Amino acid sequence: MSDAPKDLENLIDLMARLPGLGPRSARRAVLYMIKKRALLMTPLADTLGQVANSVRECLTCGNLGTKDLCDICDSPKRTNGELCVVEDVSDLWAMERAGLFKGKYHVLGGTLSALDAIGPEELRIPRLLRRVQDESVSEVILALNATMDGQTTAHYIADQLSDVRVTSLAQGVPIGGELDYLDDGTISAALKARKEL
Amino acid sequence: MSDAPKDLENLIDLMARLPGLGPRSARRAVLYMIKKRALLMTPLADTLGQVANSVRECLTCGNLGTKDLCDICDSPKRTNGELCVVEDVSDLWAMERAGLFKGKYHVLGGTLSALDAIGPEELRIPRLLRRVQDESVSEVILALNATMDGQTTAHYIADQLSDVRVTSLAQGVPIGGELDYLDDGTISAALKARKEL
Repeated sequence: MSDAPKDLENLIDLMARLPGLGPRSARRAVLYMIKKRALLMTPLADTLGQVANSVRECLTCGNLGTKDLCDICDSPKRTNGELCVVEDVSDLWAMERAGLFKGKYHVLGGTLSALDAIGPEELRIPRLLRRVQDESVSEVILALNATMDGQTTAHYIADQLSDVRVTSLAQGVPIGGELDYLDDGTISAALKARKEL
Repeated sequence: MSDAPKDLENLIDLMARLPGLGPRSARRAVLYMIKKRALLMTPLADTLGQVANSVRECLTCGNLGTKDLCDICDSPKRTNGELCVVEDVSDLWAMERAGLFKGKYHVLGGTLSALDAIGPEELRIPRLLRRVQDESVSEVILALNATMDGQTTAHYIADQLSDVRVTSLAQGVPIGGELDYLDDGTISAALKARKEL
């Protein structure tokens, strides 16, 4: 690549730092964009610049938006009594795609991790505890990932919230899931939580 | 994703159109960039804009550069007698990474394809024939992909160039390649082209 123009090399280096792309796929993506300059490359440059300048974290819940309050916190359609706690904005989007939950969110910004020295203060846990008191929340739904760190965080938060109902997402067989392809832990959890038909 | 800000949704849609990325990996890449705003997102927006405005095809060979002549065509260090014909700029970059070839290039911009109605005029083939005459070329090295379309194109070009030596890259076992993992065609080609030790 010694003979690609400097800007082009910089662009490939930057693209290669995105998750899911490496040097080879970054080169491919850049050449593809150059072929679709007006339809893809210029709009992408503009939109990237706009998002970099305008998008910020909601002061209340940590979701992304363009104002101090995100669209969900600001919406009169969302009920106030239920708070759904997620690790990251991508999890909030996943919950929204499911489309069932009508309350508000609280994005922690990660999980507790002794290894990485991430304690409650590094996350939005103190703010969560304040919100539960201030917003007269009746139920906190912990929608954290079913990983070790996620479950540790869930237990820590549940311990801090004694005056309010704390629930978590059910664990079991995914819709369309085949038992043969599921791990033992999931099958055990689904068996323990079996329901009367 | 109904609750992501409009710009953010546009950005994810645009990113998802890049080769190698889909909706899920585009979301992941965008959230990653927002976390690395100053180090990645803003530089990427700037560099994309610069490349979209400055990079163009070399008038002689079709390589990408910022001037009428690309760095290779313009370099006094590159010899004039040999011309290496490649399908695309990515192939030129691959040849340059190998670092052995010291002549100049000619980028066809694709391959002949009856199915897609791509004839010689849609590619830089007429310009190649003119260059061979004008630049007193003594050897044309066809470094086209070993695909059906690539080889058809190679044979077409070889037919047009009767007054000059035309060669093509050797076919055989790749360096480090294991016979067990190679296709039959490659093994047959390597056997036919076997060399005395």
